[in-house]
Amino acid sequence: MTAPSVQNDLFLRACRREPVERTPVWMMRQAGRYLAEYRAIRAQYDFITMCKTPDVVAEVTVQPVDLVGVDAAILFSDIMVIPEAMGMHLEMVESRGPVLHDPIRSAADVARLRRPDPTDHLGYVLDGIRATNAKLEGRVPLIGFSGSPWTLFVYMVEGSGSKNYRYPKAMIYNEPALARELLDRITEAVGDYMLAQIEAGVHAVQIFDTWGGILPPAEYREFSLPSIQALVERLKPAGVPIIAFSKDCSHSLEAIADTGADVVGIDWRTDLGLARGRVGDRVALQGNLDPVTLFASRDEVKQRVRNVLDAFGEGDGHIFNLGHGILPETPPDNARAVIEAVAEYSARAAS
Amino acid sequence: MTAPSVQNDLFLRACRREPVERTPVWMMRQAGRYLAEYRAIRAQYDFITMCKTPDVVAEVTVQPVDLVGVDAAILFSDIMVIPEAMGMHLEMVESRGPVLHDPIRSAADVARLRRPDPTDHLGYVLDGIRATNAKLEGRVPLIGFSGSPWTLFVYMVEGSGSKNYRYPKAMIYNEPALARELLDRITEAVGDYMLAQIEAGVHAVQIFDTWGGILPPAEYREFSLPSIQALVERLKPAGVPIIAFSKDCSHSLEAIADTGADVVGIDWRTDLGLARGRVGDRVALQGNLDPVTLFASRDEVKQRVRNVLDAFGEGDGHIFNLGHGILPETPPDNARAVIEAVAEYSARAAS
Repeated sequence: MTAPSVQNDLFLRACRREPVERTPVWMMRQAGRYLAEYRAIRAQYDFITMCKTPDVVAEVTVQPVDLVGVDAAILFSDIMVIPEAMGMHLEMVESRGPVLHDPIRSAADVARLRRPDPTDHLGYVLDGIRATNAKLEGRVPLIGFSGSPWTLFVYMVEGSGSKNYRYPKAMIYNEPALARELLDRITEAVGDYMLAQIEAGVHAVQIFDTWGGILPPAEYREFSLPSIQALVERLKPAGVPIIAFSKDCSHSLEAIADTGADVVGIDWRTDLGLARGRVGDRVALQGNLDPVTLFASRDEVKQRVRNVLDAFGEGDGHIFNLGHGILPETPPDNARAVIEAVAEYSARAAS
Repeated sequence: MTAPSVQNDLFLRACRREPVERTPVWMMRQAGRYLAEYRAIRAQYDFITMCKTPDVVAEVTVQPVDLVGVDAAILFSDIMVIPEAMGMHLEMVESRGPVLHDPIRSAADVARLRRPDPTDHLGYVLDGIRATNAKLEGRVPLIGFSGSPWTLFVYMVEGSGSKNYRYPKAMIYNEPALARELLDRITEAVGDYMLAQIEAGVHAVQIFDTWGGILPPAEYREFSLPSIQALVERLKPAGVPIIAFSKDCSHSLEAIADTGADVVGIDWRTDLGLARGRVGDRVALQGNLDPVTLFASRDEVKQRVRNVLDAFGEGDGHIFNLGHGILPETPPDNARAVIEAVAEYSARAAS
């Protein structure tokens, strides 16, 4: 592990279920459009250029540490860097989000994918990690991430966001062997990539299984979970905390906890106290305030933060977060109210 | 109860958890665009005109009985008829779905809503029920429906479909008393409307809580569930089976079963066997094949149908359905394969 030591290690201790003075907090998509300072930079570059420019990555990654006061930074990047590194043609279309112009629909399509070399094909991410750590100066830990193999599979087969995800689902139903081969290739690429992130200096990693929830429970356990488990097994010896977040998959929390991940992300549709009851002390939990709560009044935001802390209850192993990414129109003052409320109420709850 | 008697009463018996020779089956959105015969009619009328023309309602409602072989018809209509009957300005926009041009955002907005008289303001629905029963000639039961109060609240406050439902959520967080007043008014209107449907001759009713799942569990139980419960209590004396379907709310299945509904709808994200274990024999269950499964091969469709039947297990009280509406691009032959497979496998399972 080559990550620099940090002054504020609340997040890392909570990941390991060690005692903390107060609950640490960060927010998914915290480096993003709700901050005017982010929008000012975004106005100068297109999104992909931002992801590929290490100084820009460092600047926007550190913004929420300075402006909001989070206890961990998460690298500014995008899960679509992997499909692109595997040889696909990525475009960010303003109204539609990421589009892959050459979706994977056949064995020949799978065969043309390459195994990326992280240094050659994703070196800009690794440079971004080093630039960010230089800018952070050890104030807080830096989290690296990737899309889960299944979530990347969904984008690569569908080619874009979708309402029903007909093509990836049809592939697992009609061509399960081909689907498994594609998942294995993605899992290998993601493993290489996350190990390189750790080598470059991230203090923890999160696996974002954004589309795990488009599968019924049995299919989730057959097609998404095994690749998360394989990834965790490969990353585990590197020694940094691993967060697994399968959105809309509360049906399988116990199984996610059994992958060996240190932390399980909990979405806002799941009661945090019940989740804790189900997974016990096997893992730490991260979550789970509904991001739309941040459009309420400041007092109401603070009350809802308190409800989440109360739902988790006493004891260690809670990382406060939203149950999904912070929304672009969120008032930054309400993001700061979350940080304040977590500090205020979690310190009291621990006394 | 004025509904005509029916020859095939499998659906009604299953609703009441009485013994059946085989599992009955119908599909949400079964009267819809996947049928060429529906599209031929749709080409002649706009959607709202279709809903308001009783002969057209009867024709498209009966199509899946004739063409697919379902065990129950569900009235062709739309949940947005209630906001319109309450005085809002509804438009169906091809690319966006239903739009209400005057969303409810203030106490003054709530005050201008009227309590519709079902005969005066929704008489076309009641005429459609009578025309449909005349066309069905008692072959299968006819299901009436409404959006749940919360789901209608969401549309009325947001004004259209949305990704995050910021306005309705902000109203419950910031103005809970106003939100409750609006919910009460909608609940009253929906109760009047569903009682009128029953009086006009439907054999059962379904409450579609399509947007229950946009709320965290505690807020669901505070804002959606109580209005469903109030509705069930008001409808119960009318004596027809009541189906409650809160999509993406598996966190609260026990509470939904406790509303007094006869049948609880189960979405495809929930394991049907686990759901049955949780609610026991209090209610019948309806569901829950993932509609995207119907893009698989015919053999695979039949296998997935079998998996759903196996998940429910032995015993009565199962109505086979999809876990969400059938998709417009579904091959009709695969819809028929579902019907065949349910008949084949459920008869065997009962032997």
